[in-house]
Amino acid sequence: RSAVDSAFKQPTRSCFAVYCGSSKVQGKNADAINEATRRLGKALVGHGLGLVYGGGNAGLMGTISRSVDAAGGDVYGVIPGALHGHELTGTGVQPDKLQIVSTMHQRKERMARMSSAFIALPGGFGTLEELLEAISWCQLSVHDKPVGVLNVNGYYDPLQQQIENGIDNGLIKPSFRDFVLFDSDPDRLVERLQKHKVPQGLALHWEHPEDVI
Amino acid sequence: RSAVDSAFKQPTRSCFAVYCGSSKVQGKNADAINEATRRLGKALVGHGLGLVYGGGNAGLMGTISRSVDAAGGDVYGVIPGALHGHELTGTGVQPDKLQIVSTMHQRKERMARMSSAFIALPGGFGTLEELLEAISWCQLSVHDKPVGVLNVNGYYDPLQQQIENGIDNGLIKPSFRDFVLFDSDPDRLVERLQKHKVPQGLALHWEHPEDVI
Ligand SMILES: [Mg+2]
Repeated sequence: RSAVDSAFKQPTRSCFAVYCGSSKVQGKNADAINEATRRLGKALVGHGLGLVYGGGNAGLMGTISRSVDAAGGDVYGVIPGALHGHELTGTGVQPDKLQIVSTMHQRKERMARMSSAFIALPGGFGTLEELLEAISWCQLSVHDKPVGVLNVNGYYDPLQQQIENGIDNGLIKPSFRDFVLFDSDPDRLVERLQKHKVPQGLALHWEHPEDVI
Repeated sequence: RSAVDSAFKQPTRSCFAVYCGSSKVQGKNADAINEATRRLGKALVGHGLGLVYGGGNAGLMGTISRSVDAAGGDVYGVIPGALHGHELTGTGVQPDKLQIVSTMHQRKERMARMSSAFIALPGGFGTLEELLEAISWCQLSVHDKPVGVLNVNGYYDPLQQQIENGIDNGLIKPSFRDFVLFDSDPDRLVERLQKHKVPQGLALHWEHPEDVI
């Protein structure tokens, strides 16, 4: 039933999925965001981890994939055909590790299956959506993989406040706060995620084994 | 290829999808949130619209569906089997209009196809994820349906600030701010969404016609 074919092999070593966009970072935080992204790439390789990401080479997609590649790590990209020309322009991921899928849903499911944890870089609507979906999947017991946010210069403070609003109004269980870790330091975030015990989600039973990641 | 079968007919009249949760609202904003939800139900019916929602009858899911039903409007629910016991407890939606699907993805796709616009009530991770996905779909040119947020007592101010952070850092195009309308008044939000011209998203070409909603 799964919309995603199983032709692509699992990575041989543990990978983290990194959610980020293809826009050029601008404004007064641009240097800090780009530098934190490069440090995250090195931190992943330093902890023996590979990278799974959206497969583009513009914006932070390019920065994270080049930094992992330069440090000698494995880079796996998953991109929908429709976005190939938008997010992938020129060189970047090694072609034999780039997978073309049809839909965004297939991209997100494939990335999740290949990864042992998720990290969101500062991003826009697409990144926010991927992050919220990874968190929701913890809540729905679709997976129990840790989710982290690289909170450079307070970029994601509003999201953290939004979660507190949910807790204050009874709309998020306080124990579910730990579905997502916020940290400003790439190396510390990777270490925390490797050790993190994800809170138990809802006791749900999904119909098909492939509905669980 | 679509994971969603086409057995269920489209509603006979225009519907809005409302994203909300099944938790009991608590805290000092509870009365305001419940009252705004009831007013939204009346506003939908008053504007000749039906309701598509997640199909539960606990929490705000129960409040919105009962208020639309009480005002004489059509109520369509879409719920994954795994959540049937969690979100649907007792009576609520008319059974002939409740559809059971397998996965969250099928729920969200079905709800989107049945609706001409989307509104998020104050909610937790699941609601935030549905909202961000609806917005992302505008950006990805998967659909061009308006998205709104019922911002009761500033509940969603942090999300609005998060979007501004994205714009300030070059990660969201300023013109994409209007993919989502924030309003504290249910009636005015419905009216604004009915008139709203959604900004043009990215120029993408999806592989299969069914990838577009
Ligand atoms: Mg999603």
